[in-house]
Amino acid sequence: MDNERILRTKTAMAREDLDALVCRLPENVLLLSGYWPMSGCSFLLFPRDGKPTCVVPHCEADEAAEELWDAACVSFLFGVLAAGNPYADIGKALKSACAGKRWSRIGFEGGFESVAPPWNTAEPAIPAAPTQAVLDDVFGAGRFVDATELLNELRAIKTPMEQDRLRCANEIACRGLRAFQEGVDVGVTGVELVGEVERAILVEGTGYRGARRVRAFAQVSTCAAETAMGYRAMEITTARKLASGDLALLELAVVADGFWCDRTRVRVAGSPTETQAMVHKTVVAAQEAAIAAVHAGATAGDVDEAARAIIREAGHEKEFLHVTGHGLGLRYHEPVPLICPGSELRLESGMTHTVEPGVYFPSMGGIRVEDNVLVTATGAEVFGPFEKGLAA
Amino acid sequence: MDNERILRTKTAMAREDLDALVCRLPENVLLLSGYWPMSGCSFLLFPRDGKPTCVVPHCEADEAAEELWDAACVSFLFGVLAAGNPYADIGKALKSACAGKRWSRIGFEGGFESVAPPWNTAEPAIPAAPTQAVLDDVFGAGRFVDATELLNELRAIKTPMEQDRLRCANEIACRGLRAFQEGVDVGVTGVELVGEVERAILVEGTGYRGARRVRAFAQVSTCAAETAMGYRAMEITTARKLASGDLALLELAVVADGFWCDRTRVRVAGSPTETQAMVHKTVVAAQEAAIAAVHAGATAGDVDEAARAIIREAGHEKEFLHVTGHGLGLRYHEPVPLICPGSELRLESGMTHTVEPGVYFPSMGGIRVEDNVLVTATGAEVFGPFEKGLAA
Repeated sequence: MDNERILRTKTAMAREDLDALVCRLPENVLLLSGYWPMSGCSFLLFPRDGKPTCVVPHCEADEAAEELWDAACVSFLFGVLAAGNPYADIGKALKSACAGKRWSRIGFEGGFESVAPPWNTAEPAIPAAPTQAVLDDVFGAGRFVDATELLNELRAIKTPMEQDRLRCANEIACRGLRAFQEGVDVGVTGVELVGEVERAILVEGTGYRGARRVRAFAQVSTCAAETAMGYRAMEITTARKLASGDLALLELAVVADGFWCDRTRVRVAGSPTETQAMVHKTVVAAQEAAIAAVHAGATAGDVDEAARAIIREAGHEKEFLHVTGHGLGLRYHEPVPLICPGSELRLESGMTHTVEPGVYFPSMGGIRVEDNVLVTATGAEVFGPFEKGLAA
Repeated sequence: MDNERILRTKTAMAREDLDALVCRLPENVLLLSGYWPMSGCSFLLFPRDGKPTCVVPHCEADEAAEELWDAACVSFLFGVLAAGNPYADIGKALKSACAGKRWSRIGFEGGFESVAPPWNTAEPAIPAAPTQAVLDDVFGAGRFVDATELLNELRAIKTPMEQDRLRCANEIACRGLRAFQEGVDVGVTGVELVGEVERAILVEGTGYRGARRVRAFAQVSTCAAETAMGYRAMEITTARKLASGDLALLELAVVADGFWCDRTRVRVAGSPTETQAMVHKTVVAAQEAAIAAVHAGATAGDVDEAARAIIREAGHEKEFLHVTGHGLGLRYHEPVPLICPGSELRLESGMTHTVEPGVYFPSMGGIRVEDNVLVTATGAEVFGPFEKGLAA
């Protein structure tokens, strides 16, 4: 049980005068209960006083029972002929859990538009009007307070237990980085690389330090010519064969029991050109300078500038179009801290974020190196360190 | 361009007196525009009169331009330093697209709680309060009508173009079914099987009949003892090695450019026991009887009963706990048609659904065989047929 997480949440709820939080998004159910939902149809009622209640589909009850810290678990029939109307069953369970309470302010997840999928990534269950109708019926419309900012604030600083889950996810990700490193070669395709990376993480990561539900989401862009833009947030992996001198850029998300990491490596098929090698050296130097600038008390803007200055000096500022980093943990991207130019946000111990400078040329492709770090009083801990070489 | 889809949608909008539809979920953007969103941050404004407008992140503009049938495409900067507030940009683009219109009834996706992820399955973007605030600002609060039922009705019957996309997705899925068939053996683990199945689909499916974005989501349950329940909707794939005589059940979702299929096969490591072989024979017979009962005009209940009767006669009715099938197409599961006991819903030509009877024993594991069919006037077309054998 993550006592620190519970205590910090209850303290913040008292400050915001919230009687309870009701969560439906898998990332927040996990945050406050220890359980990572399978389908996303679970509800967590987290009162400021007393024990939480988690309402789950019966087919997830085994996992919920194993993973929940201390929440009472109530299940409803789901996906079988005997099932009734799940919303009616959920409403009944929630009503029973708050019977006799006089709550006037209940926090909910109104503002989350970028979400972590549940374990069943093929078909996320999300809250919409039917969920709101159940909540209005149970708690009374007009008692809801959007707790998005509060939840993001709470999530910005990870507890030691959460930090270790992220360390574990990054250690698992290294299996994929190694498969990528070994796989990039002339004649290999992007989809083959993605297949190997995702397979390695699934097969080698499942069971590692007790991880039960591991999945990777890889993208490999093998040629800038595939897109007219130098940089973009997402690439479509193709079946084009790498030619000698082509860059392959791996963008890798890994989830291990609900905790996410976000890594990038780049390799060249065959031997790098002088330009590729120089740009890569600049990007690695920028990334390491940013990591060296991380410590509790530093501003996010200073960390960004540490990377950006090196890229500027090398003449590539215009090709580094994005931020140096973003928060992450219970999602692939979290809003705090954003490591961007001019930010005066002070980093705090326990924050976790990416460090990912990149330089992109429409004619050559992108070179980015990305790791995930933990902010500490004395500096940054890099989770799951892995070598950054461009070629063998 | 799918003229039939457009025409049927406009006819239904006239019947419901809707001036426009505004869609944000990737599945409905795809349905009405031809474009399958990458991140899920796209908006489609689909007026009853005139051309639609699609508002997309700039980094998706290339794909949108290639895939959109006839919608005007407006992009906003996203994920780069130069980006402003995306909601402001989206609001501005939508306002401009509906300038001068006097719309009083606008349909929106209020009731979708089970959704298809966008291409970026690691972090779906979903509509919540911020999207609603933009829409209220652009169109005026109080003008929205929940069009969930209308969209589900429209989606229940696939156009010939949509049917062919589903045929294609199922043909791709067969690559994974083959990898599973070849992979099941004593000593092999569930996660290894998932890795091989997903890799085969990605590598062999990308480029097949022009498919650009292909991904598989496989689950393999290798032992009923892993769960206390005989049947449940989702399983966690483990690293346990298959022993001789163990069943391996593959549940497989595949998406190809936004069109989904849902298949199941079961194999035994080594030689099946007499009981396994008998139950498997019963399940295959039930599945084939249900498929044979499918034709336009049949009731969903009759199709369910065709399968259930055979399982009942074999004495396993209590072990067949779920429906015989469900709709699918733009999502892994769609609500229409539900092939369940007693349903008087009449199947119509162009409906697509699964046929997936199963029998589950806590002591032995589950045996299910699942295919996807198209309802026609004369019977069922099985998409991507694949053999059903339990062992080599």
